[in-house]
Amino acid sequence: MKIAIAQLNPIIGDLSGNAQKILEVAQQVAADGVRLLLTPELSLCGYPPRDLLLNPSFVEAMKITLQQLAQDLPANLAVLVGTVKQNSQAHTTGGKSLFNSIALLENGKIKQYFHKRLLPTYDVFDENRYFEPGLQANYFTLDNIDIGVTICEDLWNDEEFWGKRHYAANPIADLALLGVDLIVNLSASPYTVGKQRHREAMLQHSAVRFQQPIIYTNQVGGNDDLIFDGFSFALNAQGKVICRAEGFTTDLLVVEFDETELDLELSSVNPAPTSEDEEIWQALVLGVRDYAQKCRFSKAILGLSGGVDSSLVAAIASAALGKENVLGVLMPSPYSSEHSISDALALAKNLGIQTQTIPIGELMQGFDHSLANLFAGTEFGIAEENIQSRIRGNLLMAIANKFGYLLLSTGNKSEMAVGYCTLYGDMNGGLAVIADVPKTRVYSICNWLNRHEEIIPQNVITKAPSAELKPGQVDQDSLPPYEILDDILQRLIHEHQSVGEIVAAGHDPLVVDRIIQMLARAEFKRRQAPPGLKITDRAFGTGWRMPIASNWNAIKQISNESVIAGSKSP
Amino acid sequence: MKIAIAQLNPIIGDLSGNAQKILEVAQQVAADGVRLLLTPELSLCGYPPRDLLLNPSFVEAMKITLQQLAQDLPANLAVLVGTVKQNSQAHTTGGKSLFNSIALLENGKIKQYFHKRLLPTYDVFDENRYFEPGLQANYFTLDNIDIGVTICEDLWNDEEFWGKRHYAANPIADLALLGVDLIVNLSASPYTVGKQRHREAMLQHSAVRFQQPIIYTNQVGGNDDLIFDGFSFALNAQGKVICRAEGFTTDLLVVEFDETELDLELSSVNPAPTSEDEEIWQALVLGVRDYAQKCRFSKAILGLSGGVDSSLVAAIASAALGKENVLGVLMPSPYSSEHSISDALALAKNLGIQTQTIPIGELMQGFDHSLANLFAGTEFGIAEENIQSRIRGNLLMAIANKFGYLLLSTGNKSEMAVGYCTLYGDMNGGLAVIADVPKTRVYSICNWLNRHEEIIPQNVITKAPSAELKPGQVDQDSLPPYEILDDILQRLIHEHQSVGEIVAAGHDPLVVDRIIQMLARAEFKRRQAPPGLKITDRAFGTGWRMPIASNWNAIKQISNESVIAGSKSP
Repeated sequence: MKIAIAQLNPIIGDLSGNAQKILEVAQQVAADGVRLLLTPELSLCGYPPRDLLLNPSFVEAMKITLQQLAQDLPANLAVLVGTVKQNSQAHTTGGKSLFNSIALLENGKIKQYFHKRLLPTYDVFDENRYFEPGLQANYFTLDNIDIGVTICEDLWNDEEFWGKRHYAANPIADLALLGVDLIVNLSASPYTVGKQRHREAMLQHSAVRFQQPIIYTNQVGGNDDLIFDGFSFALNAQGKVICRAEGFTTDLLVVEFDETELDLELSSVNPAPTSEDEEIWQALVLGVRDYAQKCRFSKAILGLSGGVDSSLVAAIASAALGKENVLGVLMPSPYSSEHSISDALALAKNLGIQTQTIPIGELMQGFDHSLANLFAGTEFGIAEENIQSRIRGNLLMAIANKFGYLLLSTGNKSEMAVGYCTLYGDMNGGLAVIADVPKTRVYSICNWLNRHEEIIPQNVITKAPSAELKPGQVDQDSLPPYEILDDILQRLIHEHQSVGEIVAAGHDPLVVDRIIQMLARAEFKRRQAPPGLKITDRAFGTGWRMPIASNWNAIKQISNESVIAGSKSP
Repeated sequence: MKIAIAQLNPIIGDLSGNAQKILEVAQQVAADGVRLLLTPELSLCGYPPRDLLLNPSFVEAMKITLQQLAQDLPANLAVLVGTVKQNSQAHTTGGKSLFNSIALLENGKIKQYFHKRLLPTYDVFDENRYFEPGLQANYFTLDNIDIGVTICEDLWNDEEFWGKRHYAANPIADLALLGVDLIVNLSASPYTVGKQRHREAMLQHSAVRFQQPIIYTNQVGGNDDLIFDGFSFALNAQGKVICRAEGFTTDLLVVEFDETELDLELSSVNPAPTSEDEEIWQALVLGVRDYAQKCRFSKAILGLSGGVDSSLVAAIASAALGKENVLGVLMPSPYSSEHSISDALALAKNLGIQTQTIPIGELMQGFDHSLANLFAGTEFGIAEENIQSRIRGNLLMAIANKFGYLLLSTGNKSEMAVGYCTLYGDMNGGLAVIADVPKTRVYSICNWLNRHEEIIPQNVITKAPSAELKPGQVDQDSLPPYEILDDILQRLIHEHQSVGEIVAAGHDPLVVDRIIQMLARAEFKRRQAPPGLKITDRAFGTGWRMPIASNWNAIKQISNESVIAGSKSP
C-alpha cells in the first residue's frame, strides 16, 4: 500500500487556501497510485489557530470546508485531514466544546473522526483552553490493514523513554495492545534546537518497544513566533528510519507499506540536520520569510549599527526575502565610531543590499533643546541614551510606514533577558528575528555563515560589542562577559536552577543576584516586544508568562543554602 | 463560632510579605475570639503567580514559608491559607506537578490540604498549565461543625444556574450530599463590570438549592492587568446576604455561625455596587494605584491632548496617586487646535496637577528635514502622522526615564480594537489605563465623574474627538460613529457573533466588513501594547490570544448567509 506524507505549510485561518493545498497534493498522489494521504495536525486551519477557535462561525466554516473537501477529493484515495470537531456532549456532561481531531475522508464522505488524547498545555501550548481530550484508542482499517491514528502529543508519553509519565494514558501502548499494523502520527511540532534528533530517538524507542512501524507527518512553516521545521519521517518496526523529508520547506514523500511483511519499506531518506548553527539559520530564514509573506510584506527594513546582531539579521533577511528586498539604514550619532559606518557598509556590500544613511545628531540636539528647561542641572544618563535609540526607532518606522516595509528588530536573547535594549527604540519592529538567540550563539552562527567566504565582516565579529549611546561605551561596562551571562541565563531560564545550584556551578553570587534582578525588572520591556522567533525550549513570548508587578526575590533564599556560606557574598 | 474573612491584597511572589499580612490579621482576630480565619485563593503567593510556579525554588520557598507561618500563628485559631502543594503522584501516574490548594493551619501544624477541583483554563486563566485537579470533595471538622472547602471555580459549575454544565463534577453538590454544615469558598476572582451581581445571584441559587450557608472570600487589589474587586460576602441557608465586605479595598469581616441553627447570623452588609460607571472608576483607580505601588513608582506622567481619553486617565491617576504625583505634558503641534491647549490646562486646573508644555513643531521639522531626500515626491500621510505621535512618545519616555515616572498610556478599547493609535507613539506606557474601556463608556464615566462638579471640562466631552495629526482631522473621518463602532465591537469581541447576526441587528455590511478587517489588522499593534486594566469579560491582553499572520476572513462566509441577500453589499 502506497502512503503519502504531505508536509504542508498552511496559513492560519485560511480554510479555503489550506483545503486547496490538500486537494492539489491529493490529486497529485492519486495519480501515482497512493492509497492513503497523511496531512499534519489541524491541516485545515493551520497550527496554532489560537482564539480563532472561540469564534463559532470559524468552527462552522471549518466544518463546511471539510465537507466540501471530502467531495472534491479523488476517489479511492483515503485522506487524513486535521480539523476540529464539536463535542456534542459538552453541554450536558461538561468539558470543552471542541476536539482536536483528524477526519478520515474517503469517497466523498467524512468516514470517521479521531480525537487527540494528550493535550499539551505548557510552554507555548494552550490546548486545554480549547479542547476536550479524546478517550479512545484511534484506528481504522484500510484494505485490511489496521492503522492506528495518533495526533502529535499522543506519541510524547513513552514513560520508558522519558523516565517519567506525563499523562495517565499512553496511546501508543493502547494501539499496540489492539494489535494495529501501523501507527501514523499527524503533528504540528515546532522547531527547537536539536528537536529532530530528539523526536527520532523517542519514536525509535517506541517503534522498537512496541514493534510498530510509525509514520510521523509534521507541519512546516513559520506562524508568528513558532517555526515548524518539517522533517517528517517514518520508522519500520525495527526502529530504522526508512524515510525523512526535507527540513524547513514543504515536501511530499511516498512510502510503501508491505502488506505481507506488515512493515514499511526503505524509501528516500534526506539527511538529518548536523550543525546546530545551520539548523538555527534555516529556521530563522524560514521564520522571517513566512512571517513577511503571511502578513503580505515583500520588503524588510532594519537599522544597521555595524554590530553583530543587526549584521546577522540583515543576512537572514536577505536570504529570506532576496537581497533586493532588504533596506539597511545607518543612523550614526556623534557617539558612533568610524567602524560602525564602515562595518555596516562592508556588510551591506557583502550582502548586496541597499542602504540609506540618516545622521541623527541634529535630531538629538532638537530633543536636547526641547527638554533643556526640564532637564536643566541633571547629568547625561539613561534618559538621553534612550532618546537616541527612540529617534532611530521613529525614523525606521517612518520609512517602514511610508514605503510598506516590514521593520525587523535585531535584539538578541541575552539583552532581551536583562533589558539591555530600549523599549520604543531598538526594540521596534514587526518581528524580532533573533530574540531567542543568545549572544554567544549569534557569534557562532556568524562564524558558521562565514565558513566559505566572508559575509559578516570579520571586524564586526572581533570588535567589542557596544550600543554606542555614549562616548567609549561597551556592553561589558554594564554586563558580565557574554559567556558568563549566557550560562547563567541558560540555568535560570531553561533549567530553572536555584541560586545555590548556579553558584555551585562556579558563578559569582553577586553576579547571579544582579542577573536575577535584571531579568525580573526587564519583564515590562519584554511584554511589549514584537513576536520573537522561537528556537529554544523556552523563549520569551507566548510561552513565557511572568507577572510584571511582583516581588519574588530568589536571592533571599540564598541564606538557606549552605553553598553560599564561603562565598564573596556579603 | 466566629469566623473571619480576610480580604487581602497580596503582592505576587512576595511570600514573606504575604505571610506577614496573614499573620497580622490572624493576631488581630484571635484576640477577638475568632475560631476560623479565611484567606483568599493562593493567599501566600498572590493570584495569579503565573510562570513563577515553574520555578522549583519558588515552590520550595512557599512550602518553607507556609510551615513557618503555621508555627507563628496564634494557638486555637484555625486558618485556611491558599498555597500550592506538590503532586507526589505525578511522576508515576502522569499529570501536572502541583495542586492549587488550601492548607488548614492549626496549633503550629499544617493539618490538612484541600485541592482545587475545577481549574479554569479560558480567558486570562491558565490553571491547567500548572495544576492537576483535585478529585475529592474537601471538608474538615472544627468544633463538631463540618465545613466544606471550595476554591474559586469550584463553585462556578451549578448547571441549574447556568443552564449547562462546564465541568463533569459539581463540588457543591458533592459537599451537600456529604451533609456538611457550612461551605467556604476561597477565591481570587477578577473584576469585570457587573460581576458582583453575577456572583451573588449564582451563589444565592446554590445556597437555596442545596440549603447551605456559604462564605465567599475574595482577593482584592490590582495585579498587572487584573483587578480583584473584593466584595467578599456570605449567604445563609435561605440565600440571604448576611455580610458583604467593601469593594476595591482590603477588608476584614467577622461573622457568627450559630451552632444550634447551623446557619450564619446577619452581620455587617456593605452596599453592593449600583452604578457601572462608578464601579469601573473604582476598579481603574485601584488598578493604577496597585500597579504603580507594586512596581515601586510613586509618580505618574501622561500626555494631555485636551481629549476625553487623556483627561479621564489624568483624573484616575490623580485619584490613585494623589494630584501632587501626576504630571501632565502638553505637546502641541502646528495642527493642534487652540482648545486642545485650553482644555488640557482647564482639566489640569480642575484636578490640581502640574503640567509642562513642550511644543513639537521644531522636532517635526527636524524629522521632515532628515527624511526629506527619502520622502521626496511623496504625499503627507500616515507616516508623517505617526512621526508626530512618536516624537511625543519619545519626549514622555525621556521625562519618565529621567525622573522615575510611570508613563500611563491613554488609548481606549475602541481605538485599540481598530488600530486607531500609533505603536511606539501614543501607545507608549507602562500601563494602559483605559485599554479595556470602550469610547462610549469613556464618555459615560466622564459624565458620572462630573455629576457634582465639573472635573472633566465640558468642552472636552462635547467637542468632536480628534487625533489632530493633520489639519481639521476628526476621528469620524476614519471611523464610524462610536455608538455604531462600539456596538459592532461588542458583538464581535464579546458575543462572538457572525457577520450575519451583526447585519441582522441592523448594521451596514460594508461597515461590519471594514471593522472586521481593521480588528484583524491591528493585532500586531495590540501584541506590543502595555498591559491594559481589564474590566470586561474579554479584554485585549493575557486573555486575548490571536494569531497575527493569519487569513481568516469572516466576511467570506457572508455569501452563505441568506440575511445578506437583500443588503447593500455588492
